[in-house]
Amino acid sequence: MLAAQLRPSPLLGQRQKPEPPAANGAPPAKLPELPFTELDIAALRENAPQAPPRPAAAAKPRSAGAGKKGSSRALTELDMMVLRGKDQVPTIQWPQKNSFIEVAWDQLMDSGADIYSHVRRGIKELPTTKAFDKLVGIGSTLRLQADKPVVLLLGSGWGAHSIMKVIDVDQYEVVCVSPRNHFLFTPMLPSTAVGTVEFRSLLEPVRVANPFVDYFEASCDKIDLDNKVAYCTSKNAYKDGRLPKFEVPCRFLLPVKMHTTLLEWDDDILIVSVGEQPATFGTPGVAENCFFMKEIPDSVGLRQRIQNQFELAALPGTSEEDMKTALHFVVVGGGPTGVEFAGTLSDFLREDLKKKYPELMPYVRVTLLNSAQTILTQFDARMQQHAIENFKRVGVEVRTGMRVTGVTQDTITLRDGEEIKYGLCVWSAGNAPRPLVQQLAAQIPEQAQYQPGEKPSKLAVDPFLRVIGARDVLAIGDCSLMVGDRLPATAQVAGQQGAYVAHLINRGFLPLQGGMDQPPPCKPVSTSELMDNMRDATMGDDEGQAVIYYKKPFNFLNLGALAYLGGDSALTEINLPFTNIKLSGQLAYLVWKSVYITKQVSFRNRVLILFDWVKAQVFGRDLSNF
Amino acid sequence: MLAAQLRPSPLLGQRQKPEPPAANGAPPAKLPELPFTELDIAALRENAPQAPPRPAAAAKPRSAGAGKKGSSRALTELDMMVLRGKDQVPTIQWPQKNSFIEVAWDQLMDSGADIYSHVRRGIKELPTTKAFDKLVGIGSTLRLQADKPVVLLLGSGWGAHSIMKVIDVDQYEVVCVSPRNHFLFTPMLPSTAVGTVEFRSLLEPVRVANPFVDYFEASCDKIDLDNKVAYCTSKNAYKDGRLPKFEVPCRFLLPVKMHTTLLEWDDDILIVSVGEQPATFGTPGVAENCFFMKEIPDSVGLRQRIQNQFELAALPGTSEEDMKTALHFVVVGGGPTGVEFAGTLSDFLREDLKKKYPELMPYVRVTLLNSAQTILTQFDARMQQHAIENFKRVGVEVRTGMRVTGVTQDTITLRDGEEIKYGLCVWSAGNAPRPLVQQLAAQIPEQAQYQPGEKPSKLAVDPFLRVIGARDVLAIGDCSLMVGDRLPATAQVAGQQGAYVAHLINRGFLPLQGGMDQPPPCKPVSTSELMDNMRDATMGDDEGQAVIYYKKPFNFLNLGALAYLGGDSALTEINLPFTNIKLSGQLAYLVWKSVYITKQVSFRNRVLILFDWVKAQVFGRDLSNF
Repeated sequence: MLAAQLRPSPLLGQRQKPEPPAANGAPPAKLPELPFTELDIAALRENAPQAPPRPAAAAKPRSAGAGKKGSSRALTELDMMVLRGKDQVPTIQWPQKNSFIEVAWDQLMDSGADIYSHVRRGIKELPTTKAFDKLVGIGSTLRLQADKPVVLLLGSGWGAHSIMKVIDVDQYEVVCVSPRNHFLFTPMLPSTAVGTVEFRSLLEPVRVANPFVDYFEASCDKIDLDNKVAYCTSKNAYKDGRLPKFEVPCRFLLPVKMHTTLLEWDDDILIVSVGEQPATFGTPGVAENCFFMKEIPDSVGLRQRIQNQFELAALPGTSEEDMKTALHFVVVGGGPTGVEFAGTLSDFLREDLKKKYPELMPYVRVTLLNSAQTILTQFDARMQQHAIENFKRVGVEVRTGMRVTGVTQDTITLRDGEEIKYGLCVWSAGNAPRPLVQQLAAQIPEQAQYQPGEKPSKLAVDPFLRVIGARDVLAIGDCSLMVGDRLPATAQVAGQQGAYVAHLINRGFLPLQGGMDQPPPCKPVSTSELMDNMRDATMGDDEGQAVIYYKKPFNFLNLGALAYLGGDSALTEINLPFTNIKLSGQLAYLVWKSVYITKQVSFRNRVLILFDWVKAQVFGRDLSNF
Repeated sequence: MLAAQLRPSPLLGQRQKPEPPAANGAPPAKLPELPFTELDIAALRENAPQAPPRPAAAAKPRSAGAGKKGSSRALTELDMMVLRGKDQVPTIQWPQKNSFIEVAWDQLMDSGADIYSHVRRGIKELPTTKAFDKLVGIGSTLRLQADKPVVLLLGSGWGAHSIMKVIDVDQYEVVCVSPRNHFLFTPMLPSTAVGTVEFRSLLEPVRVANPFVDYFEASCDKIDLDNKVAYCTSKNAYKDGRLPKFEVPCRFLLPVKMHTTLLEWDDDILIVSVGEQPATFGTPGVAENCFFMKEIPDSVGLRQRIQNQFELAALPGTSEEDMKTALHFVVVGGGPTGVEFAGTLSDFLREDLKKKYPELMPYVRVTLLNSAQTILTQFDARMQQHAIENFKRVGVEVRTGMRVTGVTQDTITLRDGEEIKYGLCVWSAGNAPRPLVQQLAAQIPEQAQYQPGEKPSKLAVDPFLRVIGARDVLAIGDCSLMVGDRLPATAQVAGQQGAYVAHLINRGFLPLQGGMDQPPPCKPVSTSELMDNMRDATMGDDEGQAVIYYKKPFNFLNLGALAYLGGDSALTEINLPFTNIKLSGQLAYLVWKSVYITKQVSFRNRVLILFDWVKAQVFGRDLSNF
């Protein structure tokens, strides 16, 4: 669909293949040819579910694009391709896989732009009227009215936070809906459960991250893609029990002129960044009896429970049996979260609890259960072995190949029938889709073909992170599944995807229809703009009607992986352009600390975490129980 | 009752007036004469409920005691009076009121001794077997068995913490039972509700305060004074739902020799330091709808609720009416807690929330309701006026003479029928007795005469802090009522009382029977010890049988009062030997800060609070909501 003729029209938000609207009485423009050859698409689809990191299609040398390279290099600033809105449509080559250095360079350049916009935002006055003043009655419900195009952002995790930090709030009315009013630095969550780091040191409130975003503390329960409306319910009720509900539409309420006086161009964007929720895999009793390790309240409860178990075991008259049960800490799941929690807990036991409850130490056990035959599968075998040996050293019993089939209030049952008595169980065995994601995916027929199975569990996105089969809907982070390039569900991916999406939007590109056979995001330009940006582009003479397409699909820059193992030992893998550095032990722990301090989202968080570390070292971890 | 002949006997723990037991076939010793004249006791009793700080009886010049002064001064170290165990019983002069300087000097001397015992405790190894190994079966229940006399301490507040810091754990098996495993610096609790200071900065775990105390996280539900058994229930249940219960007896399980080879002397001591709970005065709806300001969980909930109210009001579609209701913060009670919370909340509003929710500010209100005609009654009228004017400046509406008659989920009703819509209500209107204190007082007939009314609400104690009518039971802090000298229910009093009791016990004195007509606490000495201690004492020749009485009743050293008002303004009143310094405004706030930093119970707390203050100043208070 050519964006040049786009206007507010009944077509917007519909899911069928876009057709060129015959606006302004102009003749319908010819559709651009499919940017991928049929072969490419078939290869992508085949590879989608079990694709290796670099899909066959993307790795294929592209002779067709080679001739364009010279001209596309000239576009250093906007990094785009130019198309005439007429019939001379070249074959658009995407997704292009870039090298590590190219991606790193791009990200560095983007960071420069981000710093500029941060500074500008810092000196800007905060408006005293915000979103709730912008409501107009439509039918029986109130709806948000904005004088700018709306970017509706669902979530406040890594992806959403990254968007909020970068997005241009002058161009867009950014509305964030999330039941959690803060960003959480999830990789360090295990540290908070034992008090090495305090809860608030890992958080940044949304309103601090970007005060110009309209934030609403609510859950989005349902999205109507046809009408592009998000139905939201407040997290908190009024004192009289009423639970506020509201709708945020992504549609036109006012026609807006953007970028050019020649074209009318406006479209709202929905970004789904809601992440996932802990998966129980249908194991009975897990939700009722286990702790998850996902949000701050999980960690708050866990910290309290660890302390409770020790106080309980220290009571007079406690039998040896009861002590052993109460002080058996079980972690289910051998991924980074489970491993880090087991390691951190063992530190807490050896460094702090041992001093205060020396008489209980013979009864304490920490067990890590994993259904796979090894732990930390993202690291190589040598490092996995190091982790297992380190756990032996710090007193954590690792049992691999153990599948939990049920949990009751004091017993964990394994597949082979073994019963394990426990006092506390942390379940970090994986993630499952949030209901909203399933509800959304179910509305889009195209989604099913990328995720064979009963119900799509993620939102399949094309390399521009557009939800396949939907219009102006983007999905990032754990809730998304990039077709052709299965990325790990990590903070690193979500954060980079957020920044990518924000830059795409900041540059004025509109996602439009998502799909492997759809043209890339594009934006309209006047011929004079076009001339400024790209002197060597082929141009028509029809009153400056032109669009430029976004050339850059999302490329993940894998910087490496980290895992803390307890006892001042960690595993780190750092990816550099020509080599990977793999470390284990104390030096790796130093790297772990340095990276996590550097990666904090604000100076405040850095200071607080450093102080917490010093505090835990000097005064020990706090044992107060409340 | 003369302690010289005391032995484990069926009499112990009984409530009747003690009679000299005819142990060892010795002739019953003559009871000492009543140490107070009938007139003195009558005066004390009359004055008890409405007595001014210094009761008439105590202020009366005592000619009878004057002659003794010379000899009592010679006892600088133990500060005691010596009595022969026979019939030459002098009139014991107590309570003696000491001057400010005398009391301050005593406290300084005591602190010296405390430092010595702290250092000694610091280098001592922690035993690896603790109380749960000391259980012996008696009948159907397990009971604690100790090889030293037991001091059973109920509570972990100001009084109990002060005892734990000072008491000699070599002499006594100290058992602390409290549902809260930490000490809380209560005066700064309002600061934590808005995030000026973090929760954990105000706490010190019991196990850190004194690792040699056997701490049990449990509530004492009932005390059987006849058998001297405390019935306790664990705060936490096992995972299978069983809630552990246990008994701590204060009685002899093993005969112990103390201080002297001549006398067998052993007695357990019970110290009640459980404080009080918030009083609702039977006002309907308060317990269900209001926040109290007593413990950390209150403050945790309050901090969350403040943030929730703002997020709720910031939702789209919120009516003006709903916003006004949600953002109306009401504080009931014009005492220091209520006032400090109102002041701190107004700081939070003006300094932090205003920046993030500028559009909501027109709807925010803070109201302080007080039933009396003024606020902060412990300060003088000029300072009260300053407080009211300061509140006007920082935007807190003060309404005096307003009695709340009912609270529903969103409405506060006043006596005159006025209805106030509110979003959050903090109730700090006073304190009420804990059930345990009532249960205990009901067992002692003597208690009723000091507290006219339906049910005694405090434990009446004599000037040695012994519960009147009970044997070897002490009560300190808010749950006690000192007959003849009504002390304010403050942290200052409880802390001093705790230290006083710990020093009394450390010196080997036993409280014995409490009562205004009972002899002071005493301890047995051999004649050789007596000779060493007091060369000028009258002595008998009957094989060294003698006791010394504790001369020093509790004297409260009133150091002053502090209250923070918001907007960097405070009231402080500092009592010095010859003058009182009264300050208000910013200088007073500086004093407030200095005093509270100095008064922290550990270096750790001082560092944490200082850091919190800097953090709040530099980064603002955290708005994360979890």
